[in-house]
Formats: sequence, structure tokens, C-alpha cells
Amino acid sequence: MIHDGAPSVDWLTEDVDQLLRQHRTGYAMARGFYTSPAVYEEDIKTYWNQTWIWVGHLCQLPKNGSFFRFDYGPESLIIARDRKGEVGAFVNVCRHRGARVCPEASGRTHAFTCPYHAWVYELNGDLRAAREMGEGFDREDHGLLKAHIRIMEGLIFVSTAEDPPEIDTAIAGLTPLIAPFGLERMKIAHEASYPVPANWKLAVENYMECYHCGPAHLDFSQSHSLKDPSSVTPELLAALRAARAKAGLSPAGEFSQHNIEADTKRLDAWSGSYPLYPGYHTGSRDGQLVAPLLGDLKAPFDGANDLQLGILNNLLIYSDHVVGYRFVPRGLQDTDIQMVWYVREDAVEGVDYDLEALTWLWHVTTQDDERIIRVNQEGVNSYHFRPGPLSQMEEFMRGFYDGYLNTLRRARGLA
Amino acid sequence: MIHDGAPSVDWLTEDVDQLLRQHRTGYAMARGFYTSPAVYEEDIKTYWNQTWIWVGHLCQLPKNGSFFRFDYGPESLIIARDRKGEVGAFVNVCRHRGARVCPEASGRTHAFTCPYHAWVYELNGDLRAAREMGEGFDREDHGLLKAHIRIMEGLIFVSTAEDPPEIDTAIAGLTPLIAPFGLERMKIAHEASYPVPANWKLAVENYMECYHCGPAHLDFSQSHSLKDPSSVTPELLAALRAARAKAGLSPAGEFSQHNIEADTKRLDAWSGSYPLYPGYHTGSRDGQLVAPLLGDLKAPFDGANDLQLGILNNLLIYSDHVVGYRFVPRGLQDTDIQMVWYVREDAVEGVDYDLEALTWLWHVTTQDDERIIRVNQEGVNSYHFRPGPLSQMEEFMRGFYDGYLNTLRRARGLA
Amino acid sequence: MIHDGAPSVDWLTEDVDQLLRQHRTGYAMARGFYTSPAVYEEDIKTYWNQTWIWVGHLCQLPKNGSFFRFDYGPESLIIARDRKGEVGAFVNVCRHRGARVCPEASGRTHAFTCPYHAWVYELNGDLRAAREMGEGFDREDHGLLKAHIRIMEGLIFVSTAEDPPEIDTAIAGLTPLIAPFGLERMKIAHEASYPVPANWKLAVENYMECYHCGPAHLDFSQSHSLKDPSSVTPELLAALRAARAKAGLSPAGEFSQHNIEADTKRLDAWSGSYPLYPGYHTGSRDGQLVAPLLGDLKAPFDGANDLQLGILNNLLIYSDHVVGYRFVPRGLQDTDIQMVWYVREDAVEGVDYDLEALTWLWHVTTQDDERIIRVNQEGVNSYHFRPGPLSQMEEFMRGFYDGYLNTLRRARGLA
Repeated sequence: MIHDGAPSVDWLTEDVDQLLRQHRTGYAMARGFYTSPAVYEEDIKTYWNQTWIWVGHLCQLPKNGSFFRFDYGPESLIIARDRKGEVGAFVNVCRHRGARVCPEASGRTHAFTCPYHAWVYELNGDLRAAREMGEGFDREDHGLLKAHIRIMEGLIFVSTAEDPPEIDTAIAGLTPLIAPFGLERMKIAHEASYPVPANWKLAVENYMECYHCGPAHLDFSQSHSLKDPSSVTPELLAALRAARAKAGLSPAGEFSQHNIEADTKRLDAWSGSYPLYPGYHTGSRDGQLVAPLLGDLKAPFDGANDLQLGILNNLLIYSDHVVGYRFVPRGLQDTDIQMVWYVREDAVEGVDYDLEALTWLWHVTTQDDERIIRVNQEGVNSYHFRPGPLSQMEEFMRGFYDGYLNTLRRARGLA
Repeated sequence: MIHDGAPSVDWLTEDVDQLLRQHRTGYAMARGFYTSPAVYEEDIKTYWNQTWIWVGHLCQLPKNGSFFRFDYGPESLIIARDRKGEVGAFVNVCRHRGARVCPEASGRTHAFTCPYHAWVYELNGDLRAAREMGEGFDREDHGLLKAHIRIMEGLIFVSTAEDPPEIDTAIAGLTPLIAPFGLERMKIAHEASYPVPANWKLAVENYMECYHCGPAHLDFSQSHSLKDPSSVTPELLAALRAARAKAGLSPAGEFSQHNIEADTKRLDAWSGSYPLYPGYHTGSRDGQLVAPLLGDLKAPFDGANDLQLGILNNLLIYSDHVVGYRFVPRGLQDTDIQMVWYVREDAVEGVDYDLEALTWLWHVTTQDDERIIRVNQEGVNSYHFRPGPLSQMEEFMRGFYDGYLNTLRRARGLA
Repeated sequence: MIHDGAPSVDWLTEDVDQLLRQHRTGYAMARGFYTSPAVYEEDIKTYWNQTWIWVGHLCQLPKNGSFFRFDYGPESLIIARDRKGEVGAFVNVCRHRGARVCPEASGRTHAFTCPYHAWVYELNGDLRAAREMGEGFDREDHGLLKAHIRIMEGLIFVSTAEDPPEIDTAIAGLTPLIAPFGLERMKIAHEASYPVPANWKLAVENYMECYHCGPAHLDFSQSHSLKDPSSVTPELLAALRAARAKAGLSPAGEFSQHNIEADTKRLDAWSGSYPLYPGYHTGSRDGQLVAPLLGDLKAPFDGANDLQLGILNNLLIYSDHVVGYRFVPRGLQDTDIQMVWYVREDAVEGVDYDLEALTWLWHVTTQDDERIIRVNQEGVNSYHFRPGPLSQMEEFMRGFYDGYLNTLRRARGLA
């Protein structure tokens, strides 16, 4: 007998409502979540376009007139610093016939002039000029659509929702904990994109659990304790607390809003450290530092500090560098794993840090991830796939499921 | 607030009927017209397969047995000159199991033999032979499907509709006006195809308005007055009339059936000249002629003569050459901009004309168009796109919208 | 008039039920069968995943622990020989979160360890180990899904249906007839894959009829009598019977279960010979043998023996080699024609056979097929395509249609 026979459930449906209703808590999500074009449309419209997205860092906007784009799915946002120095975010779609008003990825400008018909928008999104529009046309009604924006320690978060999820409680809770890292005084050392032929949710799930770290990440597992919870001994925790104190961090400071998106419009958020194995001061090949200490740190804290502000937005803070992760949808089964490596802003490449040494660990780790996310999508595409039970090490993933599913359920009147 | 809040309108629908009902006159068309597979299917079945298409020129059929193909979307037509010299058009689909009976793009043959099972069709489409079909099979019922055909001054127009739009009034009106150009005595000097990742309607719209010519076409705008209606001064118009008279053309001859497809099954059609700027005799880099004068012209008329017969079919007549434009759908967001440059049939390349000089203007202009049509589609794909108001210089585009929308509405019983 | 006007039939529908209801016996199938994503989903779920598929040969599993994969559409099967020497087949989808547990195409192993989270499956599919699954998790419920399997003369057939079609009557009928060919004592001499941008059914249809052999296969037609039934004279049949007897085969042994899938869940099956033209002992360029005689044959039988066990599974047995054919769906209009050439297991390449000579005929023949199947799909995609009448030489294809259509009708409650 080939099937495990869960009665009265259509495991192969691609209907969004039925998928949302059928999900079994504690199990993987069904095939349709990763194969249905209707779900993907909902993912962009109802999830990505409604939540907060970490789009970049203030170091990308050094001067008035500086701008950069952040794109996902069919969407494109412009983040710009205007003439007064204010940072704003806008939808990169002309209010005339919809062309991208900003075809460049980044740069500096006095205004955004649509390449099609030359409607001119100010750096704050207002429409400055539009030729031949006749009487009755009101420029004030035709500025670029403005997105909500928050900046936390230099990190820029944007939401295009009319009524975005509540984010300020999390920012207030996280800020004092991460302040010593001096995240606002960083620069980008390197960026890389790892395309994977899989739905974006499979990439997020992969980031959410370390059940796979032991089997799949030999290099990572050598230094990071996450591969096996039982390896985090009292001795290791005590060492971490001592190192944090020596570094100038509160010994065990944590902020947690876990699994809160499931029930409210408040974002999941998290900051907390876990130990590296003895001899490792940072996430590098030999455990030695690969860049100058961040911010106000007085010594390495010999751990890794997770930072999450909204399920989609994840950074990993080491003593000497920060790695940011994004799982950017390009199509139903086409995702870019985007990685950004930050070091302190005054560090000089070739003098204070070596790019290969800095990026080695998460380059090889992400290559592993690309491979296993790919075979995950391949198997999920099978009509024989039935969601299996989650392990005890996939707890955070359940949080992602709950937050994601309930966001869609609320939007569709099912919650 | 991110949205402009047009109440009770679902701007993101991909439902064909709802899209047709929701369109606001004087505004761009909504996202779904350019993103919905159902709309694209309708575009081919209800619009392209029902209207008249300019497929080529008699110079492509020099002898009995000569043929060429014209393909769009999933369709393929054969245009052939039969043993009696008659020109006909047929659907390039075998009446047995549907193979393309003519895999070649053009050539000369005695008959069309299907490469699959060797059903043999005459040059006039009749089925000549089919083996092993048993009794009761009637060859007369299984000829290639015949398309309607009209030839105007050498230009070939085809419709696969059972009951095509009325075209003869337009032909009768246009013919005397364009006769002096001698279009039937031309040859193809050059053909080129510019693929653009956008829906075909965005390419048609681009051709329909010169609101973009100033910002997007620096080279074109240097010689052609269309970039700005206010630049067409009484002096310029007077110069055009004088030049037309000197060339042997009626001073201000025009034929117009504008916006007629919206209400009837009669085709929009248009012939009329606009001035080039002083010093320009034709559409070339320096304004000098790039080929011998066409037809019966006695002198250059120092203008450009638009010729339209059906919304899809557009040619631009200069004193010394003609440029034909086609916006051929290949897929939902995949279009070929096809260009054909014609010169008089006795002109010799390298002696009477130089190919680079002849094609320069519309090569660079079409490269510009490819770029802006592409960013147009990119922005229209956004779930944040809302159709904006059209300018006063996009009047012809409204005609395209009205004709297109009402053709679909009529076919679906909505008009 | 462009259409042949079959009233009240929507020839362009893509609705599965309507397509199944509308089919006219004796005619080609309608466009939607080859263009509708919903039909393609049904093809995999209801046809391929329910019937028996020929996946390979025992020679691919020489030792305990040997395994190979067979993939089609989104599906992947593992065929493995376990520690006791038993051959089994499993769905290559992890019971946890669905990753491919076996990313390799073939090899030898002690167990299948999922590359994602290291769930370990035995060679017989049982789950051996899964970490951190907590109490209440039952390993016995989470083995790889097992497929049904049958082995006939070394050929391996698999079905993933809960209740597969009846196959044992056919195996019992075929086995004595093909036993003298010694198919279980063969090895793979060569494999090749010919991708064709067409629906898999067009490739199966192409194999099912030799109406196209005369026009399309000049090389094949020189030696094989199938191109024209009238060419199979009494003299040719008598020569075949004499040669079969001399080879040690029953003079005219045949087994036939034709068009039986249409009405029952019993597989179509067929074994029977047809003559080669005088001078041809096998399917080769010059008719001379290209490898040692198979099995117990005492002389070449100067014919070709078709072997079919289920509509999808076809092999052609010559005196000295066997060619297996598979038409493997990769997507809606993306198919791999997979060919396998077998010779007797003790034949040595370069000594007993030359690879180019062995594979020449079916390499050139399949290249021809790729070309005509491609133009078939191109024409079928036209909205003008209407299914035409089948010839008298397309009888077996009608069997395919009937079996395929009734299988889908039964599954959807329409039969």
C-alpha cells in the first residue's frame, strides 16, 4: 500500500483556503504551499507586502540624494535620503503608466525621472512635474506610493502595508541589548547571492532550524553549538556568560517575542547568544577573529548573537562581523539567498580584514544549504509527498508556520 | 497610506470579464491585462485571430510556387502564390493530426507535404493526397483552413476570422492617397527583430504615442516634430504642404477612420503626414536622402507619412524608404518588435543605398523603445501598480484601448 | 470560412472532464490534451502513478546494496537490492519534510541517508533511525512509501498505485514466448536521451503507428516492412516463419491483449514478430548482425519482435540486440525519449560489437522522430487546430487513446 491514508484530507490541493484549513500543527506544510501559483501570489500580496522587510543599512545612503533599490518577487522599492537628510521608502512604480521610475540599483541623484515619459519625482517621492496632463490633474495625488519605514541601529526596515504590524515594542526591547555592537557604525564588506530553485519558504525554514546542521554543515558544526542542543553544557553556557561580561555585554541578555505573529499583528523578534565551542572566538575557519571588534566591545564574547526582527529578517552578530540573511522570492520556485557581511566602518580591507577569511564559513555553509533546499523542493514536488512530523529541534520553524499561516488566515477571514 | 484607494475595484484581478468591466476611460489599463494568461489567450483567439494582420509584401512572392510564413503566438500562416499566380493564405496546421505542414520560413515549392504523414496540399490549400484513409474520407473536407486576404499597393493583409472586420472602405480611402509612393514597386532592404520581455500591448501602446519621444528618443526628436505638438508651427505646416505639392502629393491629403473599431467591426485606418524639422528630407542621421525617391515622387516631401490599416498594422513612409512595424506576441510577456525597411525595387545596395545609413534612425530608436517597454512591464507586474491618467499626447493610445476592449467585450457579450 | 464548424463542441477547452467527454473515436485528440496544465497533472497522478512502468533491468542491480533511480515528471523512484538480495522499489521522498533521500542516479550503499536531516532508511525502505523525534514517534509508520514490483525475464516493472492494474496474466502469457531471447542475460550497451519540446502523449502516439515511417524514416523503411502493410506479402511472412523456426522460436508465436485497458484494469500487452526485408537479419545499416545472437537463438530470425507490457512500456527485440523505448514526461511540453540498447551479457564492446554500428538505425530514426513530434506539438498549439480523422495505419494509437481516456474517465467517475 503506497499511501499513509490520512482520510478526508486532500494532500494535493492547490486551493489556498483548503491548504490553510488543513495544516496539521507539528507537521511540515503540504505540497501546495510550495507548488501553487495562487499561494505564491498570496505570499507576495498578503505576507511580504504586509509585513516589515529588512531592506538594507544606512551606510548605503551616505549623502543627501543617495538611493538604493530593494526588489523581491514583482516588487521594487526605492530607499532614498532626501534634500533634508530624511530617509524615505517608495514603491518604484510610476503613477502614470507604471514604468520603473528608477532602473538603477543604487546611486545618487537630484530627483527620480521616469525613463518613459519623464514624470519627475522628488527625493521624498512627491511628484514635481508631469507634462501635458491637462487641467484637473493634481500633482499632489500622484506622488510615488510611500512605504512605512523604521531604522534600528542603522538597519532599515520597510513595510508597504496600509496598517503595518506593530514593530516599535520590538525595537524598544532589542535596541539596548544590541547597542554595544555598534551596528550603526558598520560598512558592507561583501555581498553575495545564492540562487536556489525552490520556494522562498523552504529557504526560510532551512534558516529556522539547526536539525540539519549536524548532517549538512560539517564546517559550521565544528564551531557552533547549535547542531545539537545536548552539546550546550552548563560549562559552555558559563563560559559564554563570562565572555559576554568581559566583552561589556550583559551576561545573559535576551529579548524574546516568539510565536507572537501567530495571534497578533505584532512581529516576532529575538536577540540572544549561543556559545561557540572552546577555542572559537568568532565564526571563522580557525576561530580567530577576522576583523576588528565591533562597536564598544572590549573583548570577543566567544559566541554568536542571533538578531531577528520579524520572521523574514535575520542577522547573526559575531564579535567582529555581522552576517545578514535574506530569502528573496524571485518566482514560485526561484529564490535568492542574499548574504551581506558587515564589518566596522573604519576597517580597511587587506589591512584589518581579509575577504576570503571573513566570508569563508557562511559561503561554504550557504552552498550546503543551497544543495539541501534544492533536493527538498524536488521531493516536495512529488504527488506522493505527505507532510511528516517535525522534530524537537524544529521549534522555531513551527513559529514561522504559525505566523505565516495565521497572517494569511486573518487576511482571508479564516482566523 | 500606501494605496490611492479606489473603492470597490479589484485592481489586481486577472478575471477577463471583470477587467473589461472595470476599465476607466482616460486611464491606463490595469495590471491583469498584462499578467493574466487568460487575457493572453483571449488576445490571440479574439483579437489577433479575428482582426486583419499585415503579414508581408508581394515582393516576397516573386513566382508561382513562392511562399512565406507569418507566425504569432501559437499561430502560423502560410502565404503562397499558386500555379495560376493567385495569392492565398492558409493556416499552417495539418488537417490530420495537426503538424505544421510547412516547417520552412519561406521558399518555393510545388506543394506542401506534411513532414509527419505526407498528406499533400496544393499551393491553394486543397488536399491533393492522403494515404490509407479508408472509404468515406472526403479530401474536399480536409484542405488547409483558408484565411481571408486583401492586397493594398503590394501590402498583404490576412484575417482568419469567419466574418472579418470590414476593411474595403479603408482600402478604398487610403489607396489614392498612397498611390504616388509606389508601394507595390518596393523590395525589402533589411529586416530585424527586437525581442522585448513584455506583453505585446505595451509595445503597441509605445508605438501609439509620442509622449515618450522627447525624453526617450533623443535622435528621433532631433528630426521629427512629433515629440511636442506645440513645435508644429504654422510655418512648419506650410513648409510641409509646399514640399508635398512639389513632390507631386496632394498638399494635405489625409484619410482618417479613428476610434471606429470601438463601436463597429470596421477597422481604424489613417494616412497623413507630419513635418520633419528644417533641413531634414527624410528620417536619417543628417536628414539627407538615404535611397532613391519612391514611386512617382518628383522631390522629397520633407515629412513622414503614417500609414495605418487596422490598429496592429503600421508603416511609416518617408520620401525614399518605408519602415514597417509589427509587435508580434510570442508569449504573455514576450514580444518581438519586427521591423522591415523597404526601398524601391530597382535600388541596388552599395550603389543606391547604404544599409547602415538606411537603418540607423529606427535601429537606435527601437533599442530605446525596447528598454522603456521592458521597464514598463517590470513596473506593471507590481501588485502596487494602479493605472494612472493618460496625458493629452496619448490620444491615439485611447483609440487602441477602445478598439481592443470593445472587440473583447463584443466577443464576450459584454458590449 | 475558416472553421469546419463542429457544432456544440468547444475544441479549445482545457477542462479535463469536458475534454474526456468530447473525444470523437477515430479522430485525433483535441488541443487541450496537449496544452492544459490540469490535464498534465492528471497524466502524472492518474495515469503514470497508477499504471505499471518499465523502469530498468536487473543488470543494473548486480550486488546487494546496488540501487538506481527512475524519474518522471515530478516523481522519483528508487529501485534497490537489499541485504537479502530482494529487489524493491520506493518513492524517493523523505517521510519527514520531503527531501529526495537519494540524490544520486545510481550506485551502491548500505542505507539511504537523507541529505537534509539524516533520517536513515534501510535498503528495503524501512526507517532505521531518526534523531530527536520525541516520544510517540513510531519508526514503523515512517518508512519510504513502497511501490509494487514485478520482474519479467530481467525487466523490472513498478507501480505506485494502491491497487495496480492486473499484470500477471500478461506476464504469464508473454514469458514463454520471449524466453528463448534470454532477456535476463543481457547488459546495457548504450543509453541515450532525446529531449523533445512536446507533450509525452505525442511521443507515445508517434511510437504507436508506422503511418509516418514511409515519409519520415527513410533508413528504417529500407529494412522494416512496417512502413506499408501491403508490403508484407505471403512470401515475406513465410520467410519469417521459416527463419523463426530455424532460430528455435515457435513459427508464429504471438500473445495479444489489445485494447483491453479501455474496459478493464488489465494491461494491454503484446508480443509478435514482423519481417525484415530480404537480406536483412537485424535492424542495422546493412542488415548484417551487429552483436552475438541473444539467449538460446540458433540463428537470426530475420525479423523484429515487438514486446509491450502496458501501453507505456515498449521494447523491440532483434536477433542480436534489444532496443527499449521510454517517453518520459519532464513537463507539459517537455519529454525525454529515452533509448536503451541491450546485448547479451557476455558480449565485449570492440570485440563482439561496435557501438556505432549497434546504435546507428535507432539513433537516426529517433532524430527523425524528434523533428516530427516537435512540429506536431507546434501545430497542435494553434487555436485553429481541430482533430482530424485517423488513418487505417493508426489502429494501435486508437488503443492508446482508449486505454488512456478510459483510465482518466474511471478515475473521475465519468465511465
